Amino acid sequence: MPATSYECAGATGQRGAATEGVLEWPQPFAMHHGGVLERARCAWRLVGRAGAPVVLAMGGISGHRRVGAEDSGWWASVVGHGRALDTSHFRVLGFDYLGGSGDSSAPVRGGAPFPVVSSYDQAEAIGRLVAELGLGRLHAIVGASYGGMVALAVGERQPRVAARLLVVSAADRAHPMAAAWRSVQREIVRFGVERGDAAGGLRLARALAMCTYRTPREFAVRFAGAPRVDAGRGRVPVEDYLFARGESYAARYLPEAFVALSESIDLHRVDVTSLAVPLTAIAVREDQLVPLADMQALAARAPGSRLHVLDSIFGHDAFLKEGELLRPIFAECLEGTDR
Amino acid sequence: MPATSYECAGATGQRGAATEGVLEWPQPFAMHHGGVLERARCAWRLVGRAGAPVVLAMGGISGHRRVGAEDSGWWASVVGHGRALDTSHFRVLGFDYLGGSGDSSAPVRGGAPFPVVSSYDQAEAIGRLVAELGLGRLHAIVGASYGGMVALAVGERQPRVAARLLVVSAADRAHPMAAAWRSVQREIVRFGVERGDAAGGLRLARALAMCTYRTPREFAVRFAGAPRVDAGRGRVPVEDYLFARGESYAARYLPEAFVALSESIDLHRVDVTSLAVPLTAIAVREDQLVPLADMQALAARAPGSRLHVLDSIFGHDAFLKEGELLRPIFAECLEGTDR
Repeated sequence: MPATSYECAGATGQRGAATEGVLEWPQPFAMHHGGVLERARCAWRLVGRAGAPVVLAMGGISGHRRVGAEDSGWWASVVGHGRALDTSHFRVLGFDYLGGSGDSSAPVRGGAPFPVVSSYDQAEAIGRLVAELGLGRLHAIVGASYGGMVALAVGERQPRVAARLLVVSAADRAHPMAAAWRSVQREIVRFGVERGDAAGGLRLARALAMCTYRTPREFAVRFAGAPRVDAGRGRVPVEDYLFARGESYAARYLPEAFVALSESIDLHRVDVTSLAVPLTAIAVREDQLVPLADMQALAARAPGSRLHVLDSIFGHDAFLKEGELLRPIFAECLEGTDR
Repeated sequence: MPATSYECAGATGQRGAATEGVLEWPQPFAMHHGGVLERARCAWRLVGRAGAPVVLAMGGISGHRRVGAEDSGWWASVVGHGRALDTSHFRVLGFDYLGGSGDSSAPVRGGAPFPVVSSYDQAEAIGRLVAELGLGRLHAIVGASYGGMVALAVGERQPRVAARLLVVSAADRAHPMAAAWRSVQREIVRFGVERGDAAGGLRLARALAMCTYRTPREFAVRFAGAPRVDAGRGRVPVEDYLFARGESYAARYLPEAFVALSESIDLHRVDVTSLAVPLTAIAVREDQLVPLADMQALAARAPGSRLHVLDSIFGHDAFLKEGELLRPIFAECLEGTDR
């Protein structure tokens, strides 16, 4: 364990201690698209029984190192005791993305420009992290959304880091319509920054993003109520939800980090045609951001890969909402069984 | 003809004069959702041979009274000599929406709040317009997008105004996902207004709207190029297009009018269960804003209606781009033939 790791007070549970720390690299960290990070930092967290096979778990651009249920993490519906990624069987590694809103190297609010972040930069950090923590070859990398893109980048560039990849709703490149939605989100945040209200811009960008994470079918069911006129303007049932989500997001995340990782998604282009790590991919038919055809193209390009197709009213957010649908696929990929 | 009409200089063509004018109503115009318009104005334009059957043509919230090819209008691909709505056979009536960016009653830039606008208000204006111009019963109302919603409102409230309705990509209510997209657009414009840059907000709102008017398939074909890093930030091919369209829109349209008519779409709820005017509806399978299921529900609710389903890579914008696909349906509905 490196000198910068530390036991996390209060996070020691019955199924094994949580350990976390921050690696700091004294040599400049060269970024894929140019520029360097001086004294790059990478915050990580390991949860579960020492000695159990280690699985790195990564999610969307808002994901971070606190992953599972025992951590009240962002993927508590899928990662935890008895869940699809079972912390009784596996030790789970999480980390904060470079360029994100966590404790790894990241933009500073209103600060100097941060270098453009590539999924390859995350892969480089992961390779170093796994080596320096002495974890050997990871049992698997499980990644959804941006985390799935990063998993593919690791597979291409660092094939010895993990024995298998399990990727949900992420392809080897972004779809142009998804890039369109995101480019509007980024421009809204920039507009807010220029007009002195970055958080106001982020609130709107997140509200827009919510429309892309979910599906027309879910909104039709949840927000079927009649529109109304209130205080001289028209209102629709869905808007309270969208802006409440935007508001809460803007209170917790850094606008500059949102832009950096949103760009990173759209810049993502990896070559999986020589992928040497077994890949299991999961597509969601209703996903508006990662269409089934793109997941099929990924599977067609990656030698020996397997593609599973799910149906979910939650679309791109299925990875957060459909733990039970993911369970048998996770079991088969991670444990060679079909629980 | 009312006293306020006038011949439009330079708009007289070989297939008949263009006549336009502005009706002004001295009595307060009571709005459906409350409030009144004092001295309400309604700008209209008639193109084509006097004596030919008159068809009212309406489009999206950016549509206006200059409709067809002879007018360099917004629907030149569909309305004109030899086109789907053939100005050799029909006289075409256009008007500027109440609350829009034209010469009818509308919000004033940075001015006092304008009453909330309903599709029923447009219907009321149309009823008066047709009566005061002495046009008798219209041969048809052809409406696409918001114009289709207004056509349905006329059908419910003013069944004697037109002998038939031809509606493209518009239902009896808005879909909650489409309402979600639009509520974000309106909030962006309000954000711009609050931050002293209404046009900047409208630019972003229109860029977002473009993503909903078109389809993932079209963007995948047009914007398949690789992303790039430029001046320290990531860029995707689609964004130049989106923001150029947004920019040009913001230069021509009033932010307050955009918000008023966008709200009007989402407030639209008409009752077609007793519709007494024959209805032909056209759905576009790829439309992200008006899903096929909503057009099927419209047709199921409206007695004796007919539904045609088209496929178009242009999605909601098919009504602007697919004149050839529309032609036989228009011919059958308007002329009882299938050209």
